[in-house]
Amino acid sequence: MPITFYDYAPAPSPRRARILLAEKGIEPEIIQIDMAKGQQLSDDYKKINPGCTIPALRLEDGTVLTDNAGIAAWAEAYKPEPPLLGTTPTEKGLVMSWNARCEFEGLMAIAEILRNTSDGMKGRAMTGPVNFEQIPALAERGAARLPLFFDALNARLEGREFIAIDSYSLADITALVVIDFARWVKFKPAETHTNLLRWHAAASARPSAKA
Amino acid sequence: MPITFYDYAPAPSPRRARILLAEKGIEPEIIQIDMAKGQQLSDDYKKINPGCTIPALRLEDGTVLTDNAGIAAWAEAYKPEPPLLGTTPTEKGLVMSWNARCEFEGLMAIAEILRNTSDGMKGRAMTGPVNFEQIPALAERGAARLPLFFDALNARLEGREFIAIDSYSLADITALVVIDFARWVKFKPAETHTNLLRWHAAASARPSAKA
Repeated sequence: MPITFYDYAPAPSPRRARILLAEKGIEPEIIQIDMAKGQQLSDDYKKINPGCTIPALRLEDGTVLTDNAGIAAWAEAYKPEPPLLGTTPTEKGLVMSWNARCEFEGLMAIAEILRNTSDGMKGRAMTGPVNFEQIPALAERGAARLPLFFDALNARLEGREFIAIDSYSLADITALVVIDFARWVKFKPAETHTNLLRWHAAASARPSAKA
Repeated sequence: MPITFYDYAPAPSPRRARILLAEKGIEPEIIQIDMAKGQQLSDDYKKINPGCTIPALRLEDGTVLTDNAGIAAWAEAYKPEPPLLGTTPTEKGLVMSWNARCEFEGLMAIAEILRNTSDGMKGRAMTGPVNFEQIPALAERGAARLPLFFDALNARLEGREFIAIDSYSLADITALVVIDFARWVKFKPAETHTNLLRWHAAASARPSAKA
């Protein structure tokens, strides 16, 4: 069975996996699931991923991994080079720790803004098969949180080339997607975030960023 | 430098790390940070973890890991036996995937209920150094989400001894903490969740569950 990646090219979550796979040189078959048409909620896709989220990755043994956490752990073991989760125990801890911060303080804040304000997401404020109403106060909270995360990333990048460790890692991938996804809700790093802007330019110049 | 664990015995997040360390047989020095007295917001603790969250683990080289994601990745590399993150690529993917589900659909839903309803958390609806007001609608959403997760876990455990793979893993640790933490907000598995109740009894009987 070929490795198959269920993708939606415009969305940030599958982009995280695409960049990771590109850095690893793993080239699955790709099937686009058009979220603009609601195909992630179709009966056909529910047979692959009952959670209705994208990305999903079907492995050679038929196992389907339905989130970036699982896809990254699989990829690092399936093709260890180049390492993207760190090499030493300390490095592995730092990569997963900064990745978690990028998810919780970055991606989640942006999703809170987008899903709770967008007209197209009325009644669909959470991913998945169950419908949830928008919560405007949650969008406001996300908008208050996100600049704090940009500040934190900028501070971390003082004198550093990469976010978590001394080489490109999963944390850089997640942070790159955070910065680019933030534009969807009209947020971007400030001009004073010079470290963050320098890092973003370098991360964006990698071939994998176009994946 | 000894490995030092910053703990608060009653709280669910440090319990996740304590169970993990106990399963690994890693025995750090333990320092209690009394969250009931707000010690996590003290200047002394901010020097260790500016994010003011617990757990934190200071490693032998002085690196401080400030969340369960980093602590688990470090521990698996520092002391590989017994493996708690899976052995094969597929297993590693499944463990991280189910762990992520337990976090997002379980722990987060409970935290949404607790932090947005508790009198003691008025004005403190998020962890960290910055204050955020409670959002009652978010508590309602969490209360709607949590039973769906119990259903999903119960379905997953049909005919299975463990949640992610055929041995005890990080996903079981996180799920155990979810089920026990749910009692704080008056939720528990239904009597019809027979698989979940069987699994919970077994996970609770492990010596590490008392850690």
